[in-house]
Amino acid sequence: MYKVGVDVGGTNLAAGILAPDRSLIQKLSVPFPGADRPMDSIAAMAALIRRLLETAGISGSDVDNIGLAVPGSIDYTQKRVINAYNLGYHDFPLAELLQVEFPQVRMDIENDANAAALAEYYCGAFRGAHSGALITLGTGVGGGLILDDRLFIGGCKNGFELGHTILVDGGEACTCGNRGCFEAYCSATALIREGRRAAEADPQGMIAVQAAASGKLDAKLVIDCAKQNDPAARQIFDAYIGHLGSGIASIINTLDPEIVAIGGGVSNAGDFLFVPLRENVRTKVFYDSYADIRPAQTGNDAGIIGAAMLSENRA
Amino acid sequence: MYKVGVDVGGTNLAAGILAPDRSLIQKLSVPFPGADRPMDSIAAMAALIRRLLETAGISGSDVDNIGLAVPGSIDYTQKRVINAYNLGYHDFPLAELLQVEFPQVRMDIENDANAAALAEYYCGAFRGAHSGALITLGTGVGGGLILDDRLFIGGCKNGFELGHTILVDGGEACTCGNRGCFEAYCSATALIREGRRAAEADPQGMIAVQAAASGKLDAKLVIDCAKQNDPAARQIFDAYIGHLGSGIASIINTLDPEIVAIGGGVSNAGDFLFVPLRENVRTKVFYDSYADIRPAQTGNDAGIIGAAMLSENRA
Repeated sequence: MYKVGVDVGGTNLAAGILAPDRSLIQKLSVPFPGADRPMDSIAAMAALIRRLLETAGISGSDVDNIGLAVPGSIDYTQKRVINAYNLGYHDFPLAELLQVEFPQVRMDIENDANAAALAEYYCGAFRGAHSGALITLGTGVGGGLILDDRLFIGGCKNGFELGHTILVDGGEACTCGNRGCFEAYCSATALIREGRRAAEADPQGMIAVQAAASGKLDAKLVIDCAKQNDPAARQIFDAYIGHLGSGIASIINTLDPEIVAIGGGVSNAGDFLFVPLRENVRTKVFYDSYADIRPAQTGNDAGIIGAAMLSENRA
Repeated sequence: MYKVGVDVGGTNLAAGILAPDRSLIQKLSVPFPGADRPMDSIAAMAALIRRLLETAGISGSDVDNIGLAVPGSIDYTQKRVINAYNLGYHDFPLAELLQVEFPQVRMDIENDANAAALAEYYCGAFRGAHSGALITLGTGVGGGLILDDRLFIGGCKNGFELGHTILVDGGEACTCGNRGCFEAYCSATALIREGRRAAEADPQGMIAVQAAASGKLDAKLVIDCAKQNDPAARQIFDAYIGHLGSGIASIINTLDPEIVAIGGGVSNAGDFLFVPLRENVRTKVFYDSYADIRPAQTGNDAGIIGAAMLSENRA
C-alpha cells in the first residue's frame, strides 16, 4: 500500500507519495489559496492529491492513509488545527473536512516540526536509533522529538515547543512575548538581527557593505562574512555557536536523545557550523557519552515524508 | 510481598519497608560509614536491612526486591554506580555487592532524584497521572521525570540532569563548570549567594542584621526577610521566582508533563512561593492548558519509597 503526505504551508501546498519501501516516488505542489479562504484550501488539497495519484498512476484504493503536516498547534484527540496563523486556520477541523473527500482513507494530522522529526526517524538522520531530537534553525526555531520509537507529543498533548524554552532569561525579546527564548538567539532571524546591529554600528564594515551591494541582509550573508573572517561577523557567529551549544547541551542533559539532528537554512553552513558546535556542546554536557550531533537529511521533503508516516508511528 | 528501599546518603543510610498497599510500615537509619570506606557501606547496608526486617517482624522470604537510591550517576545496564562523589563510589558495583548478602532478592539501583520522582508517581503528587516532572530545590536543583508511566532515563541511558540545563546562558558560575545553569539560579545555594551579596552591600539591612543575630545566612532567612517585605530580600525573591518560572515554563514547553511537583527545602515556603510562581509560569507557557504546579508530597521518604518501587516500574 502507498502513503500520501501533505505539507500544508502558507506559501505552497506540497503533496507526495511514499512507496511501501518508504521512497518518495512522486511529488507535486500548488500555491496555498490564502489565509483569508481556509475552506478553499480543502478543495485545493483534494485536487492536488487526486492529481498526484493520477500522475503516479496509483489508484485511490492502493492508498491506506493521508497525513497532513501543518505549521501550527494541533488538537490530537479531535484531529483539528487549534491555530495556524499563516494558514488562517483557527479551531479548524482539517482532517474531518478532507476526510469527506477521501472517506475510505485514514487521516492523520501533525505539527510540521514534529512531522519532520518523524521523517528523520524513518528516512533520515535518526535511522537505526530509538530516540532523536530535531532542531530546525530557520525563521524560527522548531523542534520535534522521538522517544522510544514514538513521536513525543507530551503528557498534556501539547506537543514540543523547543523554540520557546528559555535560554537567556530576561534577554532578547521573542515574537511570543517572552524574553530570552531559544528562538530569539538561535533562529536565522536572530543572526539577521545581530547582523543589522553590526551594520548600523559600522556602516563601513563588511556586513554593511555586502548587504548594500546585494540589497538584502540575510543569515547566509552574516555567515559568509564570518567565513571571510570579518571581526564583527565572526563575533556574531561565535556568540551564535555559544547559544546554540547551550541549547543543545540542555536538550542532551534532560532529553538525552541518541541523536541530535539540525536542519533549516542555517544548517547549510555545514562544517563551519557543526565543527565548533560539537566542541562547544562537549564542554557543556554532563555526560561522557551522549548524542551524536549531525545534519538533518530529509530537507524540504521532511513535512511530506513525516506526514505520510504518521499512521504507521501511531499504529 | 514486601519491598525494601534504601536511601544511600552521604550522611545517613536510611532503609524502609513498603507493604503491599505501598504504605511505609517501618524505617530505620544509621550513619554512612564514610566516603573513604565504600566497602564498609555494603556491610552497614546489609546489617541495616536485616535489623529493619527483624524490627518489623518480616521474614526475608517475604521480600521480593531491594531498591537503592544513590546521589550520583548510574550505569543502568550493569547496575553500577559510575560516580557518587559524596559516597566515595566510583565505578562501584553496588547492587552486585549487596546481592551477595541477599541472593534471592531482586536488586535495583537508581539516582536519588529519579527515585524521588517515582515516589511521587506511586505515592505522592503524581498519583493518577501518567507523566510528571519533579524539581527539588535544595543545595542543588535535582529533577526526575515520569513519561508514559515510566521513569525516564533517556535514549543514551544518561538519566535526567535538570539542574544543569542552561537558563541564563553566560550567567552565574555553576559548580559543574558551566555558567547560567538552572541550579545556579534556583537552588537554595543561589538564594544564599544573593543573600550574602545583599548583606555585604548593606550591612545595616535586614538580611545582614538577622544573619548576624542567628549566626548563619541560609535560604530560609532570605525568604523570611522577603516575607517581612525587606526590599533587598523582596528583590532577591522576586528574581528567584522569575528564574524558576522560566525554568518551569521551559520544562512545560518541551516535556509537557501533566504535573510539575516541587520539593526540597525551598518548597517549604508554601503559598508564598507557589502563588507568584504559578502566575509567573502562566505568562511564559506556550499553551492554554498545561501542567498543574504543586508541592511534592513524599518529602524525606522519597528516596526510600522510590527505591522500593523501582522493580515494579521496570517490570
